[in-house]
Amino acid sequence: LGSTSFDVARAAGVSQPTVSRALRDDPNVAAETRERVHRVARELGYVTSERGRSLSTRSTQRVAMVVDLDNPLWSLLVRGLHNSLARVGLRLSLVAGRGDQHALEAQLLGGGIDGVIMSTVTLASNVPKELDERGVPLVLLNRYTESRAVDASVADDYGGGELAGRVLLEAGHRRLGAVFGPEDTSTGRGRAAGFRAALDAAGITLPDAWTWTGPFDYAHGRTAVLDLFDRRDRPTALFCANDVIAIGVIDEARRLGLSIPEDLAVVGFDDLEEAAWASFDLTTVRVPFGPMLDTAVRLLVERMSGKRGKGEAVVHPVSIAERSSHLLGSTPSPRPSRSEPAITKKRA
Amino acid sequence: LGSTSFDVARAAGVSQPTVSRALRDDPNVAAETRERVHRVARELGYVTSERGRSLSTRSTQRVAMVVDLDNPLWSLLVRGLHNSLARVGLRLSLVAGRGDQHALEAQLLGGGIDGVIMSTVTLASNVPKELDERGVPLVLLNRYTESRAVDASVADDYGGGELAGRVLLEAGHRRLGAVFGPEDTSTGRGRAAGFRAALDAAGITLPDAWTWTGPFDYAHGRTAVLDLFDRRDRPTALFCANDVIAIGVIDEARRLGLSIPEDLAVVGFDDLEEAAWASFDLTTVRVPFGPMLDTAVRLLVERMSGKRGKGEAVVHPVSIAERSSHLLGSTPSPRPSRSEPAITKKRA
Repeated sequence: LGSTSFDVARAAGVSQPTVSRALRDDPNVAAETRERVHRVARELGYVTSERGRSLSTRSTQRVAMVVDLDNPLWSLLVRGLHNSLARVGLRLSLVAGRGDQHALEAQLLGGGIDGVIMSTVTLASNVPKELDERGVPLVLLNRYTESRAVDASVADDYGGGELAGRVLLEAGHRRLGAVFGPEDTSTGRGRAAGFRAALDAAGITLPDAWTWTGPFDYAHGRTAVLDLFDRRDRPTALFCANDVIAIGVIDEARRLGLSIPEDLAVVGFDDLEEAAWASFDLTTVRVPFGPMLDTAVRLLVERMSGKRGKGEAVVHPVSIAERSSHLLGSTPSPRPSRSEPAITKKRA
Repeated sequence: LGSTSFDVARAAGVSQPTVSRALRDDPNVAAETRERVHRVARELGYVTSERGRSLSTRSTQRVAMVVDLDNPLWSLLVRGLHNSLARVGLRLSLVAGRGDQHALEAQLLGGGIDGVIMSTVTLASNVPKELDERGVPLVLLNRYTESRAVDASVADDYGGGELAGRVLLEAGHRRLGAVFGPEDTSTGRGRAAGFRAALDAAGITLPDAWTWTGPFDYAHGRTAVLDLFDRRDRPTALFCANDVIAIGVIDEARRLGLSIPEDLAVVGFDDLEEAAWASFDLTTVRVPFGPMLDTAVRLLVERMSGKRGKGEAVVHPVSIAERSSHLLGSTPSPRPSRSEPAITKKRA
């Protein structure tokens, strides 16, 4: 609805470049023309970019978001973060968190960055410690590191793993497998530990032959299913450490002619948009990314304005988005007993 | 493989904060300690972030990428662009291209931006003109604008629309519909025009009742199928102006109990990663995003170094990724004639 420099030019009877120069008070433009252009701009409510610039340099600082561009989750995090930052007048720079640690540090320390949100750390990463030592405001998002108490906004990965286990057990599954994430991330490790705990509590064994550990990606899910397909003995359900792995599992299962959930039930983790698509209808652990992102931004803003002392990890509770992919077999009523050789009562 | 400040601290027998201070030549650190820390750092090959900083400020400039965060294509563009920019020592800032034009201009002009790549323009947008007038190096990516000859790196949208029409005609479809993109974008308009031209050339009518025009999103595809579902008369195939619309179409069709491609064939546009998933197996027009992004970066770098004169649009050729979603019915051999009331020979 605002006017453009074109409107101002037309109303003032000058060219568009002259409008720009006049509004910058360029002495090459006649004083009388400058005054006319300024007046017309005011009358038309034209906000010059020069005014925008001074407003923005007063209020705007730049935050670097470190992401793993190979994990589809990054786009969801960046989209949400852009909006959370915009609400508090911060801008977003994007930094890919691959490559070596020193290159990453140099990029984050090398000018123009007022704070860092990092979603790619491994448990053993030194980068948070190094940034902290150099006084760079930093918040970890989604994953945390063991090395030091920096601020972090994460989900209850352990609790989510437990929920995933329980929803499969309640559906009647007793022969369970799992496609876990990387052991060197807090998300990979926490989700696996929670899932194992839920099975333990129910006295169900998780056979090593039915677990896979690997990256949080589509290919990892496909590989697990390919590996499983040739076995005589198969689980009725797989817990997947994130939705991207789960989609890889579903996709490869379909390629091999298996039906979901009749031949193989699947539970994911994250609740990406894709999980709700009818083609997947994926039951999954819902991570509250909105509140997680808002918390990360709040912690960062407090840290940037010197209002925080010791680091703190804020852990957000998760829930289950129950769809159809976790169901047992194709029968609507629970099947009480079929041959279940893998069940072992471990606890009384 | 590089050493950390921790390694230097241990080898020099000082604390980590002391290492940082010593390498900054902080006078609060004893001269002898400073020398020892510098020597150990050299011996261990420790690259300080201070050195990283000076290297990076010499060679690095910041490019703003304007994207529409509601269109899933943005993540593909940004991921590719980040890598293309990194190869030439440029950094990426992310700017959401919604909101009003003046806010956007203020953000792009307000400090710290050395060039702009814009993927969100509508045909009538004034923003490219305004940036150009203010001397901000700019390249349009994926979409172009009518208003002025600025540099652009785009795909052959018209040719792609034609290809999509032809692949459906060659599969034997004669009853065709289309879920088009927005009329005010070059991609929406070009793809529609090409598709219409292919049908025209074959003497096939595209009934208005079987065309929908709307945003490039999942919901637009779903809505079209819902609208179609109640009709007595339906097309055997739908051309969708991008893959996200196509996935919405497939998903809603499945929700309604239709099989793809038996009950409804679908062709998309873009060739996103999801198109190749077994759950979709989507035949689609392949846009060469890699070369498009590389061209955009090349044009921008030339523009930033003052090496370019008049604006130029580089149009990249497209191809078809032929999978199974476009096939006619479930029979492997072509069905020569079933009742086809919508066919009209328009040309001899």
